[in-house]
Amino acid sequence: MKFTCSQNKFLEVIQTVQKAVPARSSTPILEGILFETEKGMLKLTGTNLEFGIESYMEANIIQEGSVVLPSRLLSEVVRKLPDAEIEITVSDNYAAMLNCLNSTVTLQGIAPDEFPSLPEVDEKDTIEISKMLLSNMIRETIFAVALDEARPILTGALLEVEGNTVTMVCLDGYRLALRRGMTDTPKQSLNVIIPGKTLNEVGKILDDEDEKISITVSDRHVLFDLGYTRIISRVLEGEFINYKQIIPEDYKTRVKADTKILSSSIDRASLIAREGRNNLIKLSLQDQKMIITSNSESGQVYEEIPILQEGKDLDIAFNARYFMDMLKVIEDQEICMDFTTSVSPCVVRPIKGSNYTYLLLPVRVYA
Amino acid sequence: MKFTCSQNKFLEVIQTVQKAVPARSSTPILEGILFETEKGMLKLTGTNLEFGIESYMEANIIQEGSVVLPSRLLSEVVRKLPDAEIEITVSDNYAAMLNCLNSTVTLQGIAPDEFPSLPEVDEKDTIEISKMLLSNMIRETIFAVALDEARPILTGALLEVEGNTVTMVCLDGYRLALRRGMTDTPKQSLNVIIPGKTLNEVGKILDDEDEKISITVSDRHVLFDLGYTRIISRVLEGEFINYKQIIPEDYKTRVKADTKILSSSIDRASLIAREGRNNLIKLSLQDQKMIITSNSESGQVYEEIPILQEGKDLDIAFNARYFMDMLKVIEDQEICMDFTTSVSPCVVRPIKGSNYTYLLLPVRVYA
Repeated sequence: MKFTCSQNKFLEVIQTVQKAVPARSSTPILEGILFETEKGMLKLTGTNLEFGIESYMEANIIQEGSVVLPSRLLSEVVRKLPDAEIEITVSDNYAAMLNCLNSTVTLQGIAPDEFPSLPEVDEKDTIEISKMLLSNMIRETIFAVALDEARPILTGALLEVEGNTVTMVCLDGYRLALRRGMTDTPKQSLNVIIPGKTLNEVGKILDDEDEKISITVSDRHVLFDLGYTRIISRVLEGEFINYKQIIPEDYKTRVKADTKILSSSIDRASLIAREGRNNLIKLSLQDQKMIITSNSESGQVYEEIPILQEGKDLDIAFNARYFMDMLKVIEDQEICMDFTTSVSPCVVRPIKGSNYTYLLLPVRVYA
Repeated sequence: MKFTCSQNKFLEVIQTVQKAVPARSSTPILEGILFETEKGMLKLTGTNLEFGIESYMEANIIQEGSVVLPSRLLSEVVRKLPDAEIEITVSDNYAAMLNCLNSTVTLQGIAPDEFPSLPEVDEKDTIEISKMLLSNMIRETIFAVALDEARPILTGALLEVEGNTVTMVCLDGYRLALRRGMTDTPKQSLNVIIPGKTLNEVGKILDDEDEKISITVSDRHVLFDLGYTRIISRVLEGEFINYKQIIPEDYKTRVKADTKILSSSIDRASLIAREGRNNLIKLSLQDQKMIITSNSESGQVYEEIPILQEGKDLDIAFNARYFMDMLKVIEDQEICMDFTTSVSPCVVRPIKGSNYTYLLLPVRVYA
């Protein structure tokens, strides 16, 4: 195998595929990237068996072949090579020699035969969505995915398509995050539960360009097709929680608040809250004001912010971190918060439209 | 105690003094900063008993007093307060209430009586030096300070003044780093060994402005006086190694090389070297070329760079990290390297002048 390519393009594609490569694996070949020549292009594949990334790049193929090279070491070597053309020559014993100006680096590779191939996904149920929208949907919901495996289905995000509407939902038993968007390719109905870890990496690969990507779903897999790069992941099997039932439509108290002011105040209250045992902040809604307090052995915080309040006064308490996780991803200048009682969830929505819905369970305070 | 001050000035001074405050201490009061009112100013003191920092700041003192407040928590709180005036009121039980716009944060403080006072340093042996020069001297030598306590004296840097020349020397048994500069306040002779940890923090506080600071040395302490801020440290007692004897004046091979080209090549060779057992790079000097190689189970690197060579050809090996530590701090475009044999030290100097001298012991290679 022999080819030449530019250092910066090579590095970029290695770093993309590397997102699927485990740092340590009991199967050493998985710590590598599979390089193959295919249709006059270079194809790179990395996988952790849960999801895989394959990416094509243009290269000057001098001799066909394939090899598995250690991913982390290779990317560090290529990153430190000068910004020039690299010539890569793989010998019969899978040693890859990289020549670049006055540098020659030889890396011991592995025979490609044992490298697992990525599953084929039958391209029938496909939607198209803009990269930027998908990236935002992931960023604005993924923090609410369950991290423990007690209910495996909650470690994934529900992606649901109904007509032109695409919805992503994550929930972990304490909070729910929902983000809606539009697709140009209406489907009768489609839903799939994608592992949170996969979506995290998908989010890192998507750039902010307003190009479309396609998402294809089969019974057991989902394929994100970005053109030169394809990400293939297994899906979580089972029924997601009926999230629509959880979100209350009624409220007793509705509050409109400035997101930044609210966020700064809760951020300060968090500093003292996290010194305590249960990371608690208390909200008191009264007379068009929200009073935010926290206390622990280290001290107290008292914050007073102006709000637009409609309905009854209310005292309610939340986990400070869950509240901050949500506020960090909201970009709207103002938000609308609905409350019912001090033991029922708070629902956060935009002032206009229905792009997102967040639900936070309160903490019961015995005081 | 009661005073008002601006949020950003308060934060700046807290963050300066905090550099002497240990993150954890068996004596909890040391995790705090002592606040005192003195001559119409606010004085902050932090210490880890090895060195201490005191800093004065202008504040509107409404009521005199003193208190010790938890350093890390306070700095986080102040960092998250809005950029406005803060009013700080300390109650009789040492609870400090910070009021800033609509925020009120109360932090539990400690009585100041047990806070250790910093030693007095008799200001007789004093030199003046520019901040920028001292900052450079520290940065360019401190990496060679010994980290293990086998020979405690080597965990410090020698600061030596002879006439107008100030010299800082660090050495750890494998390498030596020496940096020279000038002072406007000639002394017959002065020398002191300053703990590496102290110098590290001094380096962080010095900005790049070309103001002077004064350094005062007594038998047991050294004082860095930056005006509003003073750093007082114990010194290491004992004799430093006679470093002048170690640096060979003769050579058999003299090499001039481009620092950046050399550095990039050794950086790449390090990637493979560090996968091996002893992090070794080999240099081969011949025919106006330096060939740099490294190898381990993971692969090999071969680098060829042009040099100006005077004298015999030579093969010699070094610890890759020690070589990189040195190259990282050299800003000259070119350097001069002197070699004698493959088992004697390499001496690195500027092409012109004598601002710095680095000495690196080679690694004996049995091959």
